[in-house]
Formats: sequence, structure tokens, C-alpha cells
Amino acid sequence: MFKKILVANRGEIAVRIIRACREMGIQTVAIYSTADEQALHAQLADEAVCIGPAYAKDSYLKMERILSATLASGAEAIHPGFGFLSENSKFAQLCEKCNIAFIGPNKDVIDRMGDKACARNTMMEAKVPVVPGTKEPLHELKRAKALANEIGYPIMIKASAGGGGRGMRIVHSEEEFDNLFETARQEAKNAFGDDTMYLERYISGARHIEFQILADQFGNVVHLGERDCSVQRRHQKMIEEAPSAALNESLRKEMGEVAVMAAKAANYTNAGTIEFLLDDKGRYYFIEMNTRIQVEHGITELVTGIDLIKEQIKIAAGEPLSFKQEDVRIAGHAIECRINAECPERGFLPSPGTVTEFHMPGGFGVRIDTMLYEGYTIPRYYDSLIAKVMVHDKTREEAIAKMQGVLGELIIDGIETNTDFLYQLIQNKQFQTGNITTNFIEQFLGKE
Amino acid sequence: MFKKILVANRGEIAVRIIRACREMGIQTVAIYSTADEQALHAQLADEAVCIGPAYAKDSYLKMERILSATLASGAEAIHPGFGFLSENSKFAQLCEKCNIAFIGPNKDVIDRMGDKACARNTMMEAKVPVVPGTKEPLHELKRAKALANEIGYPIMIKASAGGGGRGMRIVHSEEEFDNLFETARQEAKNAFGDDTMYLERYISGARHIEFQILADQFGNVVHLGERDCSVQRRHQKMIEEAPSAALNESLRKEMGEVAVMAAKAANYTNAGTIEFLLDDKGRYYFIEMNTRIQVEHGITELVTGIDLIKEQIKIAAGEPLSFKQEDVRIAGHAIECRINAECPERGFLPSPGTVTEFHMPGGFGVRIDTMLYEGYTIPRYYDSLIAKVMVHDKTREEAIAKMQGVLGELIIDGIETNTDFLYQLIQNKQFQTGNITTNFIEQFLGKE
Repeated sequence: MFKKILVANRGEIAVRIIRACREMGIQTVAIYSTADEQALHAQLADEAVCIGPAYAKDSYLKMERILSATLASGAEAIHPGFGFLSENSKFAQLCEKCNIAFIGPNKDVIDRMGDKACARNTMMEAKVPVVPGTKEPLHELKRAKALANEIGYPIMIKASAGGGGRGMRIVHSEEEFDNLFETARQEAKNAFGDDTMYLERYISGARHIEFQILADQFGNVVHLGERDCSVQRRHQKMIEEAPSAALNESLRKEMGEVAVMAAKAANYTNAGTIEFLLDDKGRYYFIEMNTRIQVEHGITELVTGIDLIKEQIKIAAGEPLSFKQEDVRIAGHAIECRINAECPERGFLPSPGTVTEFHMPGGFGVRIDTMLYEGYTIPRYYDSLIAKVMVHDKTREEAIAKMQGVLGELIIDGIETNTDFLYQLIQNKQFQTGNITTNFIEQFLGKE
Repeated sequence: MFKKILVANRGEIAVRIIRACREMGIQTVAIYSTADEQALHAQLADEAVCIGPAYAKDSYLKMERILSATLASGAEAIHPGFGFLSENSKFAQLCEKCNIAFIGPNKDVIDRMGDKACARNTMMEAKVPVVPGTKEPLHELKRAKALANEIGYPIMIKASAGGGGRGMRIVHSEEEFDNLFETARQEAKNAFGDDTMYLERYISGARHIEFQILADQFGNVVHLGERDCSVQRRHQKMIEEAPSAALNESLRKEMGEVAVMAAKAANYTNAGTIEFLLDDKGRYYFIEMNTRIQVEHGITELVTGIDLIKEQIKIAAGEPLSFKQEDVRIAGHAIECRINAECPERGFLPSPGTVTEFHMPGGFGVRIDTMLYEGYTIPRYYDSLIAKVMVHDKTREEAIAKMQGVLGELIIDGIETNTDFLYQLIQNKQFQTGNITTNFIEQFLGKE
């Protein structure tokens, strides 16, 4: 097992990883920017290295500095968390060259799954259902439009190198196609330096269902059940649940097996997520694979009892999985609400600043992952996620009641947060019935 | 189900009960003394009533005021928590007369189990093993000494009305008997107004093992496994675990069945605890029954997934238990450390005062029940318990590692606490082997 790990991240996920290492008896090295000198992760780690100025491109994305800090501190492995360099194959490759274990899959897998069109083709070859769409790389309008007409409208235009909604357009009819294809292609070129596009049928009124995968270096692959992340705003998840109210045992088993098949097709190792759309007729389609730990991993931990960060570390250290698929049991229901420093009334504008009062509710079945403390100043340079409030109870109904209580009790003063907005979502009747799709927040906001 | 409950307590247990009610959709009424105006429980409840001055005898023990507050607020039930009036049969009886549901057993059961000699006799009749000792009430030295000689030394002198170590003496030889019997009797008379005594053989090097019981009003009784509370200082528990490292499956099953038998013999309803001594030869002896929720109930909740406060409320409302003995599963290992506002270096002297900094660690498998917040002033009038730090992991070893991490990260500044002392206990090799008895802290302090 590793003796020392460098955590190449910040915020609550860095805190989460440091705590896991501490429990495993592994020393930790934190990295921090000049804006994060007072950050909790830098205080909790055994060592902390300042790696540059506030902007991420000058610090948390500076590969050579992070690698130098790793080598200088004697750490044998890097945990990248999520975001930043976590899905950067060049970084994974550099780690390998420096003889540092990258806690994640190898660079080839990151590349293959990072190219969305390539991932799609890999899955089609493995007989994993994908959204009907194109297989060839598209650069030219005329060919693209001909294929769009074959698939039928509404259609999604997507960039192969895409992510975060960039280079993505929904086209409702043939008339709109020319214009939207060209703007999407231009956007992709600007954002990723690559204007390779592909088309997919647009699945409306679907749920976002993802399966958590663990794969060791010996070919053992298990899934840890699904998460339902349908409550999204502009492709940003806000509330996640495990298990999904939309899956029965047989569909769960089937999709789980397909997810394992997908991970095997990708030659996957370490923790990963297979994302699906599930339509109202129970048909599901692979959309992409995330080759890192996810923000919402904690709810899977709550219902399975398995610590995903520790499993990631063990896999990277060459240990085989200590359990089999049949040992994985889903107990009860877990919900996560993402608390962001943002103002929903002003279009979810980020709201950095100093936390003047902080009351974190506790009690049975409540888990809060955060880097907040009273007096902490949230810098304006990074993601607005400041706390993940999770609850675990016997049923979905009880978990919702617990979440209402926790959100009602939570106090974060000095800044704006989306706590009240989340409280309203949780109290919404449609949410409570469980009958929600990725359009839920849009519909909810429309009704306001 | 009740619509409104008055919580007749303060501190973290009042907060715990209010949270449970909130999740069940039940309104809450808090009571508070003038010293507790800023207390968290008074802020979290839907209503809060000041019931008198700081000293408990003028507020939290003032039965008529609490009953008036209950009737005035329209609450249908009282949850007494632990301590204060929780084992006061007169209070339970007054509740009954006022047509208020007392969330606990009825007054006769409280009386019968509160009289330690009577509880002993009830158990002997039910064939529950008790520590060898006397059956008749003792008031007279000569008769007591004769019986002591029959039982054999070392012997324990105990007060029938006893509790908290008062009226209790260990006698190692016949020569000491006269003196210690008379002082114990005088102490019992002063403390309880009753000098009825009894004798028990002194079991040294034993563990304190207690079984959690739930009994509904329809004769259904289940146990929820055991807690090992051997880490005590002067009969005050400091660290509790579930399950016990000393029990194998067959002993657990046997003692659990005996505990259920004991509860049935007492005609018990609601949540209760059967306490045993377990000697190094695997023999166990009933010592007493606690007719209330215990401080350490949370670790049983962590390993069983069953919310004991909610179960108490459901039972008091006349609901039958929703599960059977075979549905109760013990998963993983849980440990609790009691954080007290006290100074171990000065003989565990209480250390009330203002909390100037408070950092509560979170994360996977961590549960903290507390009424603390930054800026809160701990009053000097009450118990020194300020937080219950609980962890839950797959194995005892992992739970210990997690507890080390949490205690290491916990910050409570402005007052003295026993956090560092607990950290040392948790790191102690003997504690880590699991081979501990009720003498452990004494031995640990002796070595310092």
C-alpha cells in the first residue's frame, strides 16, 4: 500500500480524500493556490504545498508543478479528485512517466472515453444500447443534414471532444439544422480546438440514470447500483438519489449487467460511471462514461456501505477487489443535495465571500461533506459547490423527510446559497412522487 | 400518531428527539431554564417554553410546570430523554392522570426496575442469571455480615434505591465489613431517604455488556444486539461499542434471548436496556435494567439501521413493532466517544464556558450528535456531556481508525474537553486488542 498520496484537488473532495487516507494510515500532501491558504484541505493534510496563483490554470491545472510537488514530497501516488486534471490523459501519462501512480484509469482509457464519438462506437461494438445516431466523424454540413433526416427530428448535435454543454444543440426541425450545426461546430472549434461533430436522436422526457463501476487490475468488474441524477439545471446536477424510483429489480439487474459489460469493453480500471438516459418506456441508452470519482459518489457509499475513495486507492495500489457482485447489497435510500454558493434569484449567480455563521446539522442518517468552517472565505476563482448534504433512511419517503429537516436546520450566513431553492424542490409534490425527468427544474422554474 | 410532543430535556438528547419528531411530521415543544435561553434545543423546536431558573430542581425537575406547559401547548405526549425525570415513576403517573402519553414504560415497571433489589428478585424468579447475593432486604449489620460470609469475599454492598455509585462499596475482607456497611447505609439514607441494602458477590475483571430492548404494547419484544460499555470511569461510561468484541454468535444469541426473557418478566414496554456483567469465563449476570433511552443508543442505530427514538414514539402511540427478531441485522461496527466539557488533567473537573471555535468533522460513517455551535456558552448547572462522536465502519479495526481521525480533527476551543484523553484511550494497544474490562481506565490512569 502507498505510504503517501498527493491530493491534486481542493474543496470538499480534497477533504474527503484526505480523511480516507488518514483512516488507511496513509500520509497526505495537499496542494493549494495562494487563494486557498486558509482552505480546510490545506490544514488537514500532513503536508501542504503552495503551487501557484489563484487562477486554476496557474495552480490546480499546472501539471509540472503538481508532479514536482509529488516527487519532492516523496508521495507515490496522486488522487486527482474530480474536475481539474482528473480526466486529463496527458496528466495520467506524465504520472506514469514519473513513476507516480495516477489513482484512476490509464491514459488510453481516459482518451477513448473522453472522445464522446469514440466512446459511443466502442459501446455500439460491445452491443451496449446507445442513442440512435451517427457513427462516422462529421465535418461537413451536407452529409450531416442527410444523416439527420435519416435519424429524424428532434436531434442533438454534439461535439466529439465535448463537455459541459459546449458544442451542443437541440434541433427541432430540418429548417433549423444548417444554422445550428454551423454555430455548434464553431463553438466546438473554439472550445476544444476540434470541430468533429456527431448526431444523436434527442430523447426528451428521459431520466439520467448512472451506474457506479469498480474495476480492479485483474479484470474483476462490479457495479454498485445506480444513481438517479435527473434533477439538473443546464446539465448541472443538483439533487441525486440512490436507488432510482424508476427502476425495478429486473431493470436494475439488466442495466447493471450492461454497465459492467460497458466497463469491460472499455478495458476499464478503477472507479468509473456509466451514464444512461432512461425513457418513459423503460428503454435505456448509454450516453457517456466518466473516468473519475463523481461528486455524487457519497450516496452510493451510504446505500452500499462501500467506501469508494478507499477502493480507488486499493485498486491503484494493485489490490484485487475484496468483494464480488453478489456481495453488493443496496440498503435503504440516500439523497444528496448540492449546496452551492450562488443566488438562485439572480440566475444562480455565484456568491463567494466570508461565511459569518455556519451551523451543520448532525444526527442519525445525516452525512455532510464540506470544507466550510465559520470565518472561512470562499474564493471567487473556483466551482461554487461548498457542501454536499446527504441523508440515508429506510425509504425514499423517509429520506425526503430527513432532507427537509436537515435543509431547514442548515445555516450558512454571510453568502447566498441555493439551500432554500433545494428545500422548495424537495417539498415539490412532483419530486415527492418520484415522477421526474431531466426537464423537472425547467418545469419547476417555469411555474414560479 | 401524535401531532405534538413536548421534549422534557435539554442538550444533545433534546436536539436528537426534536430532529426525530421533525422527520415524523410531529410538532415539538421544547422546555428550557433561564440558563438555556440560547440553547440549540430551544431554537430548533417549533415552540419553546421557559419553565424556571437554572438549577434543574427549579426547572427540568419541576413536574407540575412541565405538565402545565404540555397541557397549555396542546402536546399529547412527553419524551423525557435520559436523566432528569426519565425514570421517575411519579412523573409517569402524573402524565397518565393528565391524559398525556409518557414515552417510556408505565409507572409500575419503572418502580419495579428502579428498586434494584426488587429488579434482582424479579430476574431470579424469571431464571435470568444474577450475581450471587442476598434476596431479603437488609437493614441490620449482624444479619448482613452473616450473609456476606456465606457468599464470600470480595463482596459489593449496594443500596436498593441506589444509582450513580452512591450507597455502594466493595468489601475485600470480613474485617472491613462493619465500617463499610454502616457508611454505605448512611450514604443511601442521605441520598435516597431509604437505607435498605443488599449484597452481591463482587465480579472483578468483568465487561459491561448491555442489550437494547424494544417492546410494544402487544407483547412483542425484540433485542437489537448488545453494546460493550466496559470503558468507564467511576461507573461513568466514556466509550461504547456495538457489537462487543467479547461475544461470539452463540453467546450473543443466548444473551439476547435472556434479555428478551428479562424484559418480558418485567412486563416491559417501550425502549429499555438490560445490563449484564460478563466475566472472563463467559458467564454473565444481570445487574440492572434501565427504563429509558440511553446516552449510547446511537451506536445501536448505526449497526441496525433502526431509529430508536422513532420506535419509542411509535410504541407510545400504540403502534405494533414493524419488524421481528429475525429482521434485526447487525452490520459493521460502531463506536461512540462521549465528549465532555471537563479537564482530565484536573481530576475531570467540569469546564463550562463559551465555545470560541467549533469544527465538527463530517464524512462517510461519521455521526455527531451535539447541541454545540460556535459562540454557545455551556452553562455550569448541568451534565458535562456536550457531544457524542460516533463512527460506523465495516470492522472494529476500521472503526477505531476512523475514530482516531475524527477525534484528531475535532476542534472545540474556549473550554477544556476530554477529547485528547479519549484520543489516547483509542490509541492504547490494549483497547485496540479489544481485551478490556471495567478496570481499563483505572489501569490506564495508573500507568500514566
